[in-house]
Amino acid sequence: MTEPFDATEVIAAKRDMQRLSDPQIDWVVDAFTRGVVAPEQMSALAMAILLNGMDREEISRWTAAMIASGERMDFSSLSRPTSDKHSTGGVGDKITLPLAPLVAACGVAVPQLSGRGLGHTGGTLDKLEAIPGWRADLSNAEIMAQLEDVGAVICAAGAGLAPADKKLYALRDVAGTVEAIPLIASSIMSKKIAEGTGSLVLDVKVGSGAFMKRHEQARELAETMVALGTDAGVRTVALLTDMSTPLGLTAGNAVEAGGGPRDVVDLTIALAREMVAGAGRPDVDPAEALADGRAMDVWRRMIAAQGGDPDAPLPTPKETHVVTAQADGVLTRLDALAVGVAAWRLGAGRSRPGEQVQAAAGVVLHAKPGDTVRAGQPLLELHTDTPERFARAEAALEGAFDIGAAAPDLPASVVLDRVD
Amino acid sequence: MTEPFDATEVIAAKRDMQRLSDPQIDWVVDAFTRGVVAPEQMSALAMAILLNGMDREEISRWTAAMIASGERMDFSSLSRPTSDKHSTGGVGDKITLPLAPLVAACGVAVPQLSGRGLGHTGGTLDKLEAIPGWRADLSNAEIMAQLEDVGAVICAAGAGLAPADKKLYALRDVAGTVEAIPLIASSIMSKKIAEGTGSLVLDVKVGSGAFMKRHEQARELAETMVALGTDAGVRTVALLTDMSTPLGLTAGNAVEAGGGPRDVVDLTIALAREMVAGAGRPDVDPAEALADGRAMDVWRRMIAAQGGDPDAPLPTPKETHVVTAQADGVLTRLDALAVGVAAWRLGAGRSRPGEQVQAAAGVVLHAKPGDTVRAGQPLLELHTDTPERFARAEAALEGAFDIGAAAPDLPASVVLDRVD
Repeated sequence: MTEPFDATEVIAAKRDMQRLSDPQIDWVVDAFTRGVVAPEQMSALAMAILLNGMDREEISRWTAAMIASGERMDFSSLSRPTSDKHSTGGVGDKITLPLAPLVAACGVAVPQLSGRGLGHTGGTLDKLEAIPGWRADLSNAEIMAQLEDVGAVICAAGAGLAPADKKLYALRDVAGTVEAIPLIASSIMSKKIAEGTGSLVLDVKVGSGAFMKRHEQARELAETMVALGTDAGVRTVALLTDMSTPLGLTAGNAVEAGGGPRDVVDLTIALAREMVAGAGRPDVDPAEALADGRAMDVWRRMIAAQGGDPDAPLPTPKETHVVTAQADGVLTRLDALAVGVAAWRLGAGRSRPGEQVQAAAGVVLHAKPGDTVRAGQPLLELHTDTPERFARAEAALEGAFDIGAAAPDLPASVVLDRVD
Repeated sequence: MTEPFDATEVIAAKRDMQRLSDPQIDWVVDAFTRGVVAPEQMSALAMAILLNGMDREEISRWTAAMIASGERMDFSSLSRPTSDKHSTGGVGDKITLPLAPLVAACGVAVPQLSGRGLGHTGGTLDKLEAIPGWRADLSNAEIMAQLEDVGAVICAAGAGLAPADKKLYALRDVAGTVEAIPLIASSIMSKKIAEGTGSLVLDVKVGSGAFMKRHEQARELAETMVALGTDAGVRTVALLTDMSTPLGLTAGNAVEAGGGPRDVVDLTIALAREMVAGAGRPDVDPAEALADGRAMDVWRRMIAAQGGDPDAPLPTPKETHVVTAQADGVLTRLDALAVGVAAWRLGAGRSRPGEQVQAAAGVVLHAKPGDTVRAGQPLLELHTDTPERFARAEAALEGAFDIGAAAPDLPASVVLDRVD
């Protein structure tokens, strides 16, 4: 026996509602990374954590163990402060694309190291890879150079950052254990702390299209993550934002890379203000940098620096199919989850790690909640390269929207709450 | 999509406390057997079942799905009725060895198809393999011939019976999900129903050395299994029996193959009476067959029929170590679990499927609860071939027994309760 614990005793402890000790947590995360704890053991432990919970100290230790499983980056040699944003994932969430160049245009460097999308919430990298030539994989030296030169980089997180999390995330995804606050919080924060950003803004989505369906859950997740970041010396703020209906007018990959409807612009500016303030520049106003075109300049330079052609036409889908309104009235509800699942089934998302996604697949919204519609008018446009997918996408949209007589009670702002 | 379900949706249903539907259960058990549902998915589902439970109908369907994963045997062509016994596992449980020949001597055929021991409760096959020459693997034709000729067979269950259970059991064992009533009940009953016995007696152990520590738990397990057997047309009865202290005077493999202390004889006769009655011969008295030597004759023929030499000396351990009483008084408690773990650490049990066990390893008891002891007198004798194991075995025995002034309050009989 060279190992200090046996996996079954750690699993049994959490199964039986005990606290895991610091040595148990350190060992189980490390042994899982080394392959000594088998996937079927970690997945039973993850389910026990999901159902029986972990307290703040266990979560903090678990996060530290995941950070310790890999390397840490250091941006302290850059000439400007750093700030990063993380979204817990939602339907139509393309905010990173305008946000990173906008914040860079305000003099704050944005090291946005992202993962691949899984499930119904598309990934930022998938959206950018819809731009011909653009590449997601950069070396650490390339990241540093681009941050100094352009000020913003959106790229794939290297395998060296929190490898325990990478392995655990893939496992949770196939084993029904994504929706656990301790595991979500430690997963996100281990990567962001290891990434080395000086400050961090968390966009915690709430509603049917998000992992967190209810406000209290989302607030608990936000508080947990803010505490983890603060304890690790990263200035961390969280905004709770509405995800009951898709953000913007598109859900998918290529279809989301452009455009700027009201809710997207509002959220982008709200997040940018937090990032700029967190990086110590509360005097700078992102709204100006967006209006005067500086943000767009940085966007073009950022895409070009990674081999992408900012002027290339986006891929177009081979097939489209229109869903129309069946009555006159006001669109009172358009469910985010249903639209996300439809986009996923059309080919925008993957069901297994490594699976190819269709760059042109997705859903375009022709109306948003509160809009007046007429019977026969297009509500949604489905895009795919593989038309046999339309039937299952349409099935996902059954009951996804309501048309009524009176205007619905919508949130005054996409930002619902703030945690710092 | 050729599969009707995705594993994650089945896992999520049980995780979120929903009932699993019949098609979900049929699919997940079959897909796991085929390798379409991965071990890390089934292990998350097993943990969700452990923590959130299954109702009687779910358990019944799960059992049927495991039976359907393999072949079923049929003993209806035999000239005598069949009855089998299953024990949920306890420390020092060698009851099968005298019981099978005893029941056969009463005119009832006993097809005892067993699994390998795991954890602290040794397996029947491991005990018999301590007899030189004896072999556990018989063909179906050999089993039929021996049942007709000798009347009793104890052998390894073939790979064809409930292969889903075999695969699931190995997984539960390494992933901390053994202790779930729905999974224990369906595992035991799927094998016994597939085995084809006409009647069945369940020996459900209660106490520190058993999976079920408390009477109510054990009774729930017993009721669940009796219902499953009865619904499948197998006449099924359960006895709840005491496992707070080891049964008999030995725990291990070779050390248990002989001997007949009071508690062992009482339990053997109680179980034999139930088996004989279940097979429709309530008029036959097993106590007579034990006393007049007929049971011993069948034992010798049964061992010889499987290549074993009933007269061969049993293997002896290379090393022994004695644990003595530290005071005068009455032994008030001798913990079954601690003795079982000690025997396991001495080499009597395996921690991974397929691991070799030591035939001579185990623990011999020199006193049982209620016995008067003197300081310095031997209490326990530890046997092993590998003396470096003594330290960890002794550690397991720390606090395992109490010596007091007054006689302890012991159960009047090893049989505590009966469920039919």
